[in-house]
Amino acid sequence: MLPLPVLERVREALPDWDGSGMSVMEVSHRGRAFRQVAERAEADLRELLAIPDDYAVLFLQGGATLQFAMVALNLAEQHSVADYLRTGAWSKKAHAEAGRLCRARLAADASANGYTRIPPSADWAPDPRARYLHYTTNETIGGVEFAFVPEAGGVPLVADMSSDILSRPIDIPRFGIIYAGAQKNIGPAGLTLVIARRDLLGRARAGIPSMLDYQAHADAGSMLNTPPTFAWHVAGLVFQWLKEEGGLTAMAERNRRKAHKLYAAIDGSSFYSNAVDPACRSRMNVPFVLADPALDARFLEQADTAGLANLKGHRSAGGMRASLYNAMPEAGVDALIDFMRDFETQCA
Amino acid sequence: MLPLPVLERVREALPDWDGSGMSVMEVSHRGRAFRQVAERAEADLRELLAIPDDYAVLFLQGGATLQFAMVALNLAEQHSVADYLRTGAWSKKAHAEAGRLCRARLAADASANGYTRIPPSADWAPDPRARYLHYTTNETIGGVEFAFVPEAGGVPLVADMSSDILSRPIDIPRFGIIYAGAQKNIGPAGLTLVIARRDLLGRARAGIPSMLDYQAHADAGSMLNTPPTFAWHVAGLVFQWLKEEGGLTAMAERNRRKAHKLYAAIDGSSFYSNAVDPACRSRMNVPFVLADPALDARFLEQADTAGLANLKGHRSAGGMRASLYNAMPEAGVDALIDFMRDFETQCA
Repeated sequence: MLPLPVLERVREALPDWDGSGMSVMEVSHRGRAFRQVAERAEADLRELLAIPDDYAVLFLQGGATLQFAMVALNLAEQHSVADYLRTGAWSKKAHAEAGRLCRARLAADASANGYTRIPPSADWAPDPRARYLHYTTNETIGGVEFAFVPEAGGVPLVADMSSDILSRPIDIPRFGIIYAGAQKNIGPAGLTLVIARRDLLGRARAGIPSMLDYQAHADAGSMLNTPPTFAWHVAGLVFQWLKEEGGLTAMAERNRRKAHKLYAAIDGSSFYSNAVDPACRSRMNVPFVLADPALDARFLEQADTAGLANLKGHRSAGGMRASLYNAMPEAGVDALIDFMRDFETQCA
Repeated sequence: MLPLPVLERVREALPDWDGSGMSVMEVSHRGRAFRQVAERAEADLRELLAIPDDYAVLFLQGGATLQFAMVALNLAEQHSVADYLRTGAWSKKAHAEAGRLCRARLAADASANGYTRIPPSADWAPDPRARYLHYTTNETIGGVEFAFVPEAGGVPLVADMSSDILSRPIDIPRFGIIYAGAQKNIGPAGLTLVIARRDLLGRARAGIPSMLDYQAHADAGSMLNTPPTFAWHVAGLVFQWLKEEGGLTAMAERNRRKAHKLYAAIDGSSFYSNAVDPACRSRMNVPFVLADPALDARFLEQADTAGLANLKGHRSAGGMRASLYNAMPEAGVDALIDFMRDFETQCA
């Protein structure tokens, strides 16, 4: 979901962007007009997240899935150990992909509890030889989110923030590498953001494609080849919108309120339920089930008629899932809660 | 450059696409609406290029530069030989990148003639052990294009068609793999098209990222992870536009006329010149120089004022370059020729 003001600005710039006679989709990435877009987007992002100068910001392609591999290829050798916290479907994929490329191990694993809570950090078993510790800040399918930044014990902390980046302030200096596919809170699919401490660049293993080397991208200002210019432009508009809305502190408060309301409605009902430990419930993705799964289809059909889209749970999880990304207005959550109450009454 | 009717359709679908209440940038790639977009785009492309069923069509990310590596990783081992025809800046880059990943050699090299003509095929020295023969159908910087399909001597022929795909019919069965970044003749940057003979899939070397394995993408219907949905959608609109315009035979005739006119104007003048052998002049990119380079800046400034944008030659080549991609109307070429004549008269 993208903020409506952003979509309107995209629309206004078609087919003629700022009197250039061209759309943003057509301008050269080497031209001055796009360079300004690119530079402003980076500057706004640095301001929003308070990214220090000793971190590079890269605008890449390939999504988080390519980052699963790039992290391992840039920070580890084939024989190196890398630690993973497995807390849901996405960290499971990240760990599996790294396992093709280095000795990826599990420092913690929530599969035994059905991915309903993050194991207490006292129970984690990190390997001191690990080249990095990887975790997924928010699991979109299970609805599990870290409310804290893990202590990495001196190794670089690597975070997949695809689904909760820009939803609240983050303490960048605690991280080695942060990456995020754009399609949740940043912009259109096809753009991938990487924020990397500069001393971690230039360590890529030999014999890999240059497109997988962070240093090569940093040296080229993310223009090693033609970048996804349009997606970069839209991301820039999202960053501007976030600043206009009061930045990440305001966004965090809004997201807290939205999630709190919805969990309160679920917990206050005997008809809906969410199995995740309240200490690690996601503010972005709220999975819930109906007391009687036979009512699922009717729930989804009526929700759709009421203009409430995309409530079907992930195919691997079933049930329902409400996504509360930045662009989802509070009124949207209120409408969902009203609908849920009405549906419950109707079925009682 | 994109066709104006395509940009208008993109605009009409913002912020609400077909009454869905969402833009194409926001819909799920797993949802029915986007699946229809994806399937129609592939079907239209297959129709336009007459792609047989034994070829897979993949919609990927990373541009031609990532394909430089993927071709080598999927068709060759580290110790395997791969042959390259070096006819300009892009095939030079493709060969250099493959050299990181296998034993890439030059079966032909036009660097000695300053990349102004393709060496006669009788002079090529292919290696019979080569896993494939790679060439670049059109060199955008030097303005050199193959008017014929090379004879690959029994090894798979691999072609980077980034800058002339869809500009004319091509005989797909003569190729093993065709790839193309979208941003010239297909759609917005950030989408990469791969057309691969199915028997060449499933041969990727061990220990590479799954995102670099053609077979993995083919198995997942190009949705191994979230694809660049918006760019895919715009590419689909471009394919529809091409069909409405009469398909690739009509496009080839239009492109032939556009290029013929411009080269005739250049050759008929003593003020402008193009150094490329007429037998391998590009129909897509026409580089030319002014008799007096001191006039370059004035030429570009007046052209810009006249609404003729992007005429500056590549920074590595200097001079001028006119790009005549599919979306450039014949009237645009006429306007350029008129401007060039006026400028010449003014300077005489």
